[in-house]
Amino acid sequence: MKIWEIAKFLSSEVAGDGESEITGISDLHTAKKGDLAFFERSELPSTAASCVIVGADFSGSLPCPVIKVKDPKLAFARISRVLFPSKLRPPTVHPTATIARDARIGKEVYIDSFVCIGEGSDIGDGCQLRTGVKVGDKIKVGTNCVFHPNVVVEDGCTIGDGVILHSGVVIGADGFGYVRDEENAEYHKFPQIGTVVIENNVEIGANTCIDRGALGETRIGEGTKIDNLVQIAHNVQIGKRVIIAAQTGISGSTVIEDDCVIGGQVGMGDHARVKSGAVIGSQAGVLPGKIVRPGVWWGTPVQPLEEFKKQNAMVKGLSRLRDEVRSLREQLDIIKRRTN
Amino acid sequence: MKIWEIAKFLSSEVAGDGESEITGISDLHTAKKGDLAFFERSELPSTAASCVIVGADFSGSLPCPVIKVKDPKLAFARISRVLFPSKLRPPTVHPTATIARDARIGKEVYIDSFVCIGEGSDIGDGCQLRTGVKVGDKIKVGTNCVFHPNVVVEDGCTIGDGVILHSGVVIGADGFGYVRDEENAEYHKFPQIGTVVIENNVEIGANTCIDRGALGETRIGEGTKIDNLVQIAHNVQIGKRVIIAAQTGISGSTVIEDDCVIGGQVGMGDHARVKSGAVIGSQAGVLPGKIVRPGVWWGTPVQPLEEFKKQNAMVKGLSRLRDEVRSLREQLDIIKRRTN
Amino acid sequence: MKIWEIAKFLSSEVAGDGESEITGISDLHTAKKGDLAFFERSELPSTAASCVIVGADFSGSLPCPVIKVKDPKLAFARISRVLFPSKLRPPTVHPTATIARDARIGKEVYIDSFVCIGEGSDIGDGCQLRTGVKVGDKIKVGTNCVFHPNVVVEDGCTIGDGVILHSGVVIGADGFGYVRDEENAEYHKFPQIGTVVIENNVEIGANTCIDRGALGETRIGEGTKIDNLVQIAHNVQIGKRVIIAAQTGISGSTVIEDDCVIGGQVGMGDHARVKSGAVIGSQAGVLPGKIVRPGVWWGTPVQPLEEFKKQNAMVKGLSRLRDEVRSLREQLDIIKRRTN
Repeated sequence: MKIWEIAKFLSSEVAGDGESEITGISDLHTAKKGDLAFFERSELPSTAASCVIVGADFSGSLPCPVIKVKDPKLAFARISRVLFPSKLRPPTVHPTATIARDARIGKEVYIDSFVCIGEGSDIGDGCQLRTGVKVGDKIKVGTNCVFHPNVVVEDGCTIGDGVILHSGVVIGADGFGYVRDEENAEYHKFPQIGTVVIENNVEIGANTCIDRGALGETRIGEGTKIDNLVQIAHNVQIGKRVIIAAQTGISGSTVIEDDCVIGGQVGMGDHARVKSGAVIGSQAGVLPGKIVRPGVWWGTPVQPLEEFKKQNAMVKGLSRLRDEVRSLREQLDIIKRRTN
Repeated sequence: MKIWEIAKFLSSEVAGDGESEITGISDLHTAKKGDLAFFERSELPSTAASCVIVGADFSGSLPCPVIKVKDPKLAFARISRVLFPSKLRPPTVHPTATIARDARIGKEVYIDSFVCIGEGSDIGDGCQLRTGVKVGDKIKVGTNCVFHPNVVVEDGCTIGDGVILHSGVVIGADGFGYVRDEENAEYHKFPQIGTVVIENNVEIGANTCIDRGALGETRIGEGTKIDNLVQIAHNVQIGKRVIIAAQTGISGSTVIEDDCVIGGQVGMGDHARVKSGAVIGSQAGVLPGKIVRPGVWWGTPVQPLEEFKKQNAMVKGLSRLRDEVRSLREQLDIIKRRTN
Repeated sequence: MKIWEIAKFLSSEVAGDGESEITGISDLHTAKKGDLAFFERSELPSTAASCVIVGADFSGSLPCPVIKVKDPKLAFARISRVLFPSKLRPPTVHPTATIARDARIGKEVYIDSFVCIGEGSDIGDGCQLRTGVKVGDKIKVGTNCVFHPNVVVEDGCTIGDGVILHSGVVIGADGFGYVRDEENAEYHKFPQIGTVVIENNVEIGANTCIDRGALGETRIGEGTKIDNLVQIAHNVQIGKRVIIAAQTGISGSTVIEDDCVIGGQVGMGDHARVKSGAVIGSQAGVLPGKIVRPGVWWGTPVQPLEEFKKQNAMVKGLSRLRDEVRSLREQLDIIKRRTN
């Protein structure tokens, strides 16, 4: 793609020579000839890139053509998907795959070795099921999904269009629910016969687990992105365009509304509700039943970030406070002796 | 199953018409005609269920027959297992499975595609090994176990009867032990040649890892239930009927005695001991070598819940304490001026 | 191996009869006849071992021959690897394995059932790829690696010599990077087209995930050991001989220099730097961009261990401080009344 073509795709223009061919993408520091890069920060390093996407208000000078856009990082992400689209493997069904006789396979589907598809399942057009993927019975998969190697989807789950599941993801394992029989001192499994619904354009990171509903469903809303090693328990409802970083765990029946951002290693108790637009910092803990309002939150139990910071500063100042109290005691003792 | 049959199974009786057929189970709110539900809480919502299991002291009125029992949720769990038993796949050995010549396969066993069973292993009657399960060499698996897709059991481990392993579980990976050679600045692997014993009726959640003992064994006691993404290190001993929620990690040689309840994202140092009946709240941290007595614990390092709450309240009240100290200082200054 | 042979391997001598055969290894407490054990601690239990490796300054008496060395645990680890070497499966390629025509397979390689090796990949001499391993396209694997069942290595990654990947490890999944388009309220995937480089003699625990670089590479340095269920994000750089315990998560572009030790369940923000020789305690949290100097650190946000302990003690003493302030207030009131 020539530089002017990239500018055109981004509804912008080139400042400089637009005729060079772009053959790679890179960050500014490591870019080499032929690379496209982008620039956001205030400090301007030198670069060997052949073209840099810059902000509309950019007034510096660069040793290569620039393309001005409103949001350089977004523009870079968008054009990168055009320059380097995800590898699409050609439609085929590998002879080692075991596919139930009544499963329906759409058009232009890639099914690699050791894939297993169960009875009554339906794989939409353009899906890519890579080696070792296991799809159970009665599963509906939409169009253009990519399941990376060794993904497992358990019986009865529903996956939307354009969903990406990374390696080792487990969708629809039983939720963790037991009732203790005090008389016999043993746990009985509470029924875990619900399902999981993953809406369109969700992406789920490697080895993340999303349990099926106990009786109802667990739902991941459209456009939501979940990182690696995350735990989503039974009957959790996650809204649209939610971001959840790695190793976070969300307990049963908790609701996360649209457009929330959840950091890594956050823990949420059951039946909590995170209101639309809330941002929760890494390692925070949300108590069961807690309602988290919009704003930025941190700590265990979570509190507004500003309160958390103040409290942290107070704790750090504790030795000074103790010294102050000691000094008061000494002065008081002097006064007491004097006034006696 | 008719309502009166359910009542009979629960050693109870129907208040109302017992002749309707129950065709589903549900929670009270989403129940529809034909559904069985249960009721525990004080607030009584309307329901469309065909039958509701209620507590023995229930005195309200419902628009459907009720069955009175001592523990409605337990009764609901028990009858649900009868109404909707886990899917048992018919006995078969899929032609793609690779089974060592000297492996022993019991009666009525289901072995799906791409299963691998190693030399000298023994799979008990009634087991269900789903697609992609890998069982190593010299492994003893009891009767009626269910291994979900892509479970891995490494060489030499022992699995009891009625054990459920969810997808991606790894039993018997090497423990994490190294000895640093300071002279050459390199780590030597400490031998990890022990084993794992999983006792009867244990259930283990998706992508959970249970490492083999270094020299001895790692043991999970009868009836213990472990959630997803939990880490159990080498030589850990977990008692009977222990509950461990998701993403908790337990370091080497730690002992958890019978009937403990461990929340999610708890971390335990090595060589700790949690005494029978202790309850540890989510995200708590147990220091190495710590002995945790019966009772409820929280925080890092763990302390009794009541102390933790008091301490938390003290920390939240710090700014008031500081203001108090400031006010004392001002008054003291006034007095000093006056008494000089 | 006879006891004198072991002593010779350890460049030491036997105190006692060196002619007995050693047939097992064990810890002191559970050792039986024929076992080799080692002894480090001050308390000396009785043992049934046939030989014990002890420190150079050992002056106690044991009912069996002893071998004196500088570091008994290290010596035990070293000789154990000789007595009980890791199981090496005989070279073979299982007929069910699917190997791309242009993949290069080295000498003496073991490839088990349901292994998949993609186009242009290169597996070094002496590698052991166990059942269900999935190696993508254009992957370079060094010599003598062991990939346990169901390991996944995604396209384009590079693995050094002697690398051990435990079951369920995922190398090279896409990093977690999106750019929000505020106008359309949707997330665009930032390109994740970089790679992962695992250097020689790295060992990685079960179900751990190491994401590929966004544009550059994620790198794990030589001799580094990583436990189970760890998350390493895109573009992280981990030095040589680093120890990372289970369930720790490291965010994008963070650097951990050589010879660091990181506890379990630690969380690190992005673009942090942990300087060579730092030790970070379990469950600690490192803020984005933070530089952690050599020394021992704990808490969230991390602080030097000694400060953390002092602060903890201060917090625990808060109720005493509050009582002190109350007592000061009362005495002050008395003085005020008296001096009025």
